Parts: sequence; C-alpha cells; structure tokens
Amino acid sequence: MSATLELVSSQRCFGGWQRRFRHASASTRCEMTFSVYLPPQAQAGARVPALYWLSGLTCTDENFSTKAGAQRAAAELGLALVIPDTSPRGAHVADAERYDLGQGAGFYLNATQAPWSEHYRMEDYIVDELPALLEAELPIGPLRAISGHSMGGHGALTLAMRHPGRYVSASAFAPIVNPADTPWGQQAFAAYLGEAREAWLAHDASQLMATVAHRLPLRVDQGGGDSFLPEQLQPDVLCAAAKAHGWALDYTLHPDYDHSYYFIASLIEAHLRFHAGHLARA
Amino acid sequence: MSATLELVSSQRCFGGWQRRFRHASASTRCEMTFSVYLPPQAQAGARVPALYWLSGLTCTDENFSTKAGAQRAAAELGLALVIPDTSPRGAHVADAERYDLGQGAGFYLNATQAPWSEHYRMEDYIVDELPALLEAELPIGPLRAISGHSMGGHGALTLAMRHPGRYVSASAFAPIVNPADTPWGQQAFAAYLGEAREAWLAHDASQLMATVAHRLPLRVDQGGGDSFLPEQLQPDVLCAAAKAHGWALDYTLHPDYDHSYYFIASLIEAHLRFHAGHLARA
Repeated sequence: MSATLELVSSQRCFGGWQRRFRHASASTRCEMTFSVYLPPQAQAGARVPALYWLSGLTCTDENFSTKAGAQRAAAELGLALVIPDTSPRGAHVADAERYDLGQGAGFYLNATQAPWSEHYRMEDYIVDELPALLEAELPIGPLRAISGHSMGGHGALTLAMRHPGRYVSASAFAPIVNPADTPWGQQAFAAYLGEAREAWLAHDASQLMATVAHRLPLRVDQGGGDSFLPEQLQPDVLCAAAKAHGWALDYTLHPDYDHSYYFIASLIEAHLRFHAGHLARA
Repeated sequence: MSATLELVSSQRCFGGWQRRFRHASASTRCEMTFSVYLPPQAQAGARVPALYWLSGLTCTDENFSTKAGAQRAAAELGLALVIPDTSPRGAHVADAERYDLGQGAGFYLNATQAPWSEHYRMEDYIVDELPALLEAELPIGPLRAISGHSMGGHGALTLAMRHPGRYVSASAFAPIVNPADTPWGQQAFAAYLGEAREAWLAHDASQLMATVAHRLPLRVDQGGGDSFLPEQLQPDVLCAAAKAHGWALDYTLHPDYDHSYYFIASLIEAHLRFHAGHLARA
C-alpha cells in the first residue's frame, strides 16, 4: 500500500472499505493511528473529496467509525471520511490524570507550553501533514470539508476559520464554541497555550468570527437535552457572533437530544449532504 | 413508567427514543437488562410491531444499539427494535472462562444440565416473558419478527421455527446454522443440553427444516470474507436443507464482508424492509 502508511485493518462497509492506518507523524513526533472510509467511488481509481471528522474528549479514531453510521451516506455521496485520533499517544507522550487534558484531549491546536509542546501539535497534523499524506497515498483528492463533535466541533470550526481555503465548508455537533470563556477550554488553553488570554482568542470560534475575513458555509446542530449545554457549550454565543459579524451560520437546536452518538447518528446524513453540496460547487 | 420495568437510560434518536430497561426475570431468575428503540410512530399512543434482535457471542444489549445504525430505518418503517442480552448475568449466575459458554453465550435455549439449568432459560425469556412484558408495558403490539447475528442468527432461526406463529418472519446475519455439527454449537450444547445428540437436533436450524411443518419467510446474509465461515458457519448446509425440505430461503453471500458490525450496518436496512413488508401483510 505505502511505505509510510501501515494498514492496521480493512473491512468492507457499504460497498467501500473502512480502514485503519498507523504512521510515524512528523508533527506530533509519535506514532499516530487514524481511520478512513473509502466509498465505492474511490475504488475505480477516482479521487474523491474528503470530510475530516474531529472527535470529542476521550475518543479515538474508532468512536465515529463504529457509532455514527456515516458510511451509508458517504457511500451514496462519494465522500471519503477521514477520522484522526484526538491527540498524540504513547507512554513517552505527556498526559494528565483528568479526562479533559492530555491524551484524548488535544483540542486540535499546537501547544506552546512545556511539557505539551513536544508532541501536542494537532493543528499541524490535521491541517497539513495528514491531508498531504492522504492525498499522496490514497484515492483522496484535495477538496476537503470538516466536521466534528464537542471538542471536535471546536476543532472543525476553528481550523476552518484559521486556514482559509483549506476547507470548503465546516459543521459541528454540540461544539465548544467559546473555549476562552468556558471551563473545558479554559483549563486546556491554560495548559497548552499558557495563561495569557490573548493567545486563547485565536483558538475560539466565537472570537474568530470577529477577526477572520474569509467566509465559508457553517452548520451547527445542538441537542436541547445535552447536559453540557448551559456551562460548556453555549451555542448562543456563537450565534450572536455570527449575527454581529455577518457569518451565514445554519444553527438548529433539537429538543431532547443529548450529547451522545445517538444525536450524531440522527443528523450525520444531513451534515454529509450539506458538505457534499458545497464540495460539488467548489 | 412501570412497576416491573426500571428505566436505566433514555436517549432521543431519529425522532424516537433509545431506551434501556432493567427488570427481575422469572425465566432466568436474575436481573435482566434489555434495550428497546421506540420509533416516532410509537409516541402517538399507537402500538407498533417489533423486530427482536438477538446478538452474538460476548455481546450485551448495547452492541446492536450503538453499532448497527438500525434506528434510522426503524424510524421510517415504524418498527420497534427489541434487543435482549445474550444470557443471564450476575455474580450468582454460572459462568465459564471461555468466551463461548456461560455469560454472554446463552445460545437462546433452556439449559437442562446443572449448573446451567438454574438461570440459563433464554428461550422462555425471549419467546414468552419478554414479549408479554413489552406488550403490556410499552406501546408495542403483538406482531413480531426476529433477526440476529452469529449465535443470535442461530437464535432467530431456531426460535422462529420452534414457535410457529410467534414470529411473522425471521432473518440472520452470518448465523450458526448447524450447531450440532460445528464447534461453537457442540461445546455449548454439550454443556447446556447434555451429551445426547438427539437433544441438540431440536436446536439446530438445518435439522429443524426437516421436521417443522410451519413455514415462514427466511432471509440470511453471509460475508464471504468472514473468518468463521468455513468452520463455524457453513451456510451451505442451511441452503441444502432449505432446498431439500421446501423452505423459501433468501440467501446471499457478499464477497469480502467480514463478521463485524460493519457488515450488519451495511445490510440492516434491507433486513428491516424485509420484515416490515411481511409484518404489513400479516
């Protein structure tokens, strides 16, 4: 397959292939594992567009692959699904006791503070290294969209806004939208970026809406029964920023739905269609 | 909700509810946990038909709920999904070191041999106790279909054949079809039913085809890349029995697909439509 990609597993799924790969990452200076779904359209030698999926706290590349049911619509629409891990991993990689910092909680940024700065360079990994690798080694073309859940929703929104032109569209399920002002984000940013709040604002989706000129289509869905909604998620802050700064944000609150993959599964087809539509016009 | 059913969790999913319940079972003389998906049609006071799903070795009621992606089609078709556990459970319940006997491996029969016979009465539980409970306590009517995977495919086929009229249709993914002649079945039947082979034949789908007069629609799908295919599964034996005894068996071999939930997810919609069609005509 490739000198740089080690195939971990390969399973037939909806006429395509669900695969896991391992590789040595230059960005994170450790071995990284990711999953990718290649739809049937990628089998015929054609290069297909890719939706990058960023998972939430504690997840690996396998939660979305096994629980979201996204492959069905991806097979219909001819979209590859690229599902990276949520942090660097390994016995030599810095970690924390808490679930919301360290391994499984990389927050999709490049850490500047010791001990995190040695391996926690997830922004470089997701935005540059992984696409370059995939577009060289797999039947995946350079049209990209990005989505994610919770911490991964934060990642999808901020990476799309911070890197104009890298992604055609971005979406999120129950994202952390103002990490500079909410507990999960504050503790992670203090560790990874230091105590100076100015550094945090460049990784806060609601703040970025005020400063980023490049616009792209955004969709956000939030469950009304999500226990993290009032303290950690606060989608109203993102909606207010979008309105104030002229972003077209397609936001919907869904009564009763919680923070789980049952919520993601219920709406993933709509997100894939949203991205496929924008990718087709790109 | 109910004096007999304890609600463990309730999560919104595709406009319906994914729920877990715990209850004291008279059949298995222990506490049992099951999952049920109630589609939107069950919310309006209407009673909906139910597809019983029997899982494979080592599974609980949660594998199918989280990995099969069945709720989407169930919501469209107005089908409840009933997902029991695969055995009795508890510190006081007999168990074995091996993964294919004891807890997580009940084989959907009533054990006759000590120490298993005290709690391992899964046939009574699935066929009688659970439907009576659900049809009394939840918006689920008495029209039933049954499906399952691997050991649960064995359960679906044999319970449907052994209990004429209980199920409108039966289907299976990669089922154990001749347990009296294959290793998983032989070791389990020897423990649960004793060494006399005659007792085994009444729980062997391929054997039952010769003796059961009542016909019902059957569908079986098998992955061609399933590592258990040649030794444990042997679908050709079922196909030959169906042909010899005049059963209409809709059997398909799917190249490359393995024994995992990626295979189930790829075909679950087709199974739900198969059952919904027969339930609508019942």
